Amino acid sequence: MAKKALEKVAANGLINRRHLLGMGLTGMGMAAAGPALSAEAGLQIPDWSKVPGPGPSAYGGRSPHAQWQRLTGAPNPLYPGGGTSRSPLHQLQGIITPNSLHFERHHAGVPDIDPAGHRLVINGLVRQPLVFEYEDLLKYPMESRVHFIECSGNGRSNTQGTTTGSAASLHGLVSCSEWTGIPLSTLLDEAGVSSEASWIAAVGADAASMGRSIPLEKALDDVMVALFQNGEPVRPEQGYPMRLFVPGWEGNISVKWLTQIKVTNKPAQFRDETSKYTDPLPNRLARQFTFPMETKSLITSPSGEMSLQQQGLYKITGIAWSGSGSIRRVEVSADGGRTYADALIESEQFNIALTRFSIPWEWNGGEAILQSRATDSQGNVQLTREAVVADRGTNAFYHNPGIQSWAVSRDGEVSSTIL
Amino acid sequence: MAKKALEKVAANGLINRRHLLGMGLTGMGMAAAGPALSAEAGLQIPDWSKVPGPGPSAYGGRSPHAQWQRLTGAPNPLYPGGGTSRSPLHQLQGIITPNSLHFERHHAGVPDIDPAGHRLVINGLVRQPLVFEYEDLLKYPMESRVHFIECSGNGRSNTQGTTTGSAASLHGLVSCSEWTGIPLSTLLDEAGVSSEASWIAAVGADAASMGRSIPLEKALDDVMVALFQNGEPVRPEQGYPMRLFVPGWEGNISVKWLTQIKVTNKPAQFRDETSKYTDPLPNRLARQFTFPMETKSLITSPSGEMSLQQQGLYKITGIAWSGSGSIRRVEVSADGGRTYADALIESEQFNIALTRFSIPWEWNGGEAILQSRATDSQGNVQLTREAVVADRGTNAFYHNPGIQSWAVSRDGEVSSTIL
Repeated sequence: MAKKALEKVAANGLINRRHLLGMGLTGMGMAAAGPALSAEAGLQIPDWSKVPGPGPSAYGGRSPHAQWQRLTGAPNPLYPGGGTSRSPLHQLQGIITPNSLHFERHHAGVPDIDPAGHRLVINGLVRQPLVFEYEDLLKYPMESRVHFIECSGNGRSNTQGTTTGSAASLHGLVSCSEWTGIPLSTLLDEAGVSSEASWIAAVGADAASMGRSIPLEKALDDVMVALFQNGEPVRPEQGYPMRLFVPGWEGNISVKWLTQIKVTNKPAQFRDETSKYTDPLPNRLARQFTFPMETKSLITSPSGEMSLQQQGLYKITGIAWSGSGSIRRVEVSADGGRTYADALIESEQFNIALTRFSIPWEWNGGEAILQSRATDSQGNVQLTREAVVADRGTNAFYHNPGIQSWAVSRDGEVSSTIL
Repeated sequence: MAKKALEKVAANGLINRRHLLGMGLTGMGMAAAGPALSAEAGLQIPDWSKVPGPGPSAYGGRSPHAQWQRLTGAPNPLYPGGGTSRSPLHQLQGIITPNSLHFERHHAGVPDIDPAGHRLVINGLVRQPLVFEYEDLLKYPMESRVHFIECSGNGRSNTQGTTTGSAASLHGLVSCSEWTGIPLSTLLDEAGVSSEASWIAAVGADAASMGRSIPLEKALDDVMVALFQNGEPVRPEQGYPMRLFVPGWEGNISVKWLTQIKVTNKPAQFRDETSKYTDPLPNRLARQFTFPMETKSLITSPSGEMSLQQQGLYKITGIAWSGSGSIRRVEVSADGGRTYADALIESEQFNIALTRFSIPWEWNGGEAILQSRATDSQGNVQLTREAVVADRGTNAFYHNPGIQSWAVSRDGEVSSTIL
């Protein structure tokens, strides 16, 4: 096969996303296709091929060579059980997050709930208040959908101008799973929602009594009471035995350890939606009930705290998501946003789900600034960091979809930067 | 809300799949909506709501109340490392199988492979033989797709007429994951396939040197070298650091611990495709290279070894899949196949993936025989067990898509049966 020239599609080394699919890497001078095969080199028999290994097991584990972990912070003794763990976005591939690596955000730690003693109450402006036991809920028709969930504070460091950190530490509060549960509309229909009702108030059984208000229209649309995550019971960290799941909205509103839904005619003004989860603006006002997560993308490799060891061809890859639909397009820039090229979409493009992209990039040993920009199925284009700051200042805390810039230095170090 | 009558849609208690989504269960007399809420009963504060729990962790675990496991057999000292574990199909929900609960089938156990010492060789009828290291392969563009994989021997007991066992023990050699990898066509293009080539031979690095032949046309179509499973590296039991993934074909051909692909002009006739993975017929001939897995479905609950405790309404649920496309329709019968009703599709209907279905059923305390029947996007309708036996006898071992019948006795015991 003839070696084809690299088709440059944007400045500073971006290469047509289609190239690697047709011409192979040999023509690109990567080590990938390395030395030609000698029978000796290729057919050496490693030890693990010589003796049988252990047989099947009841519960599988990971290779000792692939022990990825979440990123945790130091516990705060003044905030028992509070805090976060972040998904290792720089390592994960595809779009599904394994349950053990799903990000966490707790306000009073993880309760150890016995489902036999847990109840879900639906009351307030209903014809018939109801109490559900766990076993009752298993009898209902369910639906299964692949959706991301993102903490509304995710990416705050980018808005605030932090120039250190990794993809995980800066943006690791987003994960994606198959969620299976009962449409909330089914349970609300059964309770019989009053004609005066316009909101619901959802409360968790954790020691924080996490509470959030949701407009009834959304509650009756696509919200579910989720009992299963990637095929198995929702993990304790994600709300076992049940959580609310509110597709596309800030993660906090998908109340974990769900124990009560009260139908109301106004928002409850829970502590968690006044002291937190409002967006303070520079003019001293605050935005409240800013629910949808905006259109966003992130290059996960190369990303902060990585080092490029040598000039040559690299695979840029990352994830994109939107709370308002599916991802239609991702563009990548290697020159800080002056020129962009279309990335390859590697995964399915599910509604309100992570979507995986990649593009080949030839690093010439000079400085570069890598960026990605997503467009969703509603036509929403990811905001620049500058546009986010102009709209809400640097102290809004929540809702930080701005484009992340990764600077590559001449010595190959990658770090977060602000343009 | 007025109580509506149950709309019976097939004999022996099957109820319109739409019912539970609109009218709620109260009208059906289930315990689900049980006692009306008293403030005392509903607002009792359980202990776990009173004190903070433990905070975030680096790697998450399951609730002590939800410790599902795979079903393993006793080790065979004459077959070290050989055997199977089966996914707990009677428990799993949705369509994704957690990696720790994915079924296993090993011929010489699970090798502990250090990816730094693992090589993938492509040789044979190629312009340029190639050797790939693990790190090389990570640089390639990948694709992510949700697919089932099923051992070709799965369901054999049904064909053979076994009348004991559970959904897991009889059919648990099927699971479904998001697989991420490099299209094999990319690597074969790079090696440069000769015009005489018509097959490939794939070999694993396990001590069984598992080998299988695949027609080149399929190899260049949708086959991938899979490196990731549900977002993380493929588990050792599934082929770490890499496996072939051959969508829709019998599981054994998705060679695990993949170390060599030889391009050839005829099948290799490996031991694993002559002594095994051929289908012996009653006329003493055998079918070879019967690759695609056929259209199949299975009721996972109620299923064998379960007990119905009381008359009333139950949720029948199960999974359907086809190696030739997506699932278009699933029908359920409660009278041994005389009458059928359409089930509700609860999940997405991905190509070559498990699809979840359900239908409400009112058990009147009498005998019942529960069956499901899938139709795929190609119009293929699941075969009855009788049709499978008529076509290939009871000793073909592989390819057993026949309809499973679960008998419900008057005392509520559920067991496999043969009509």
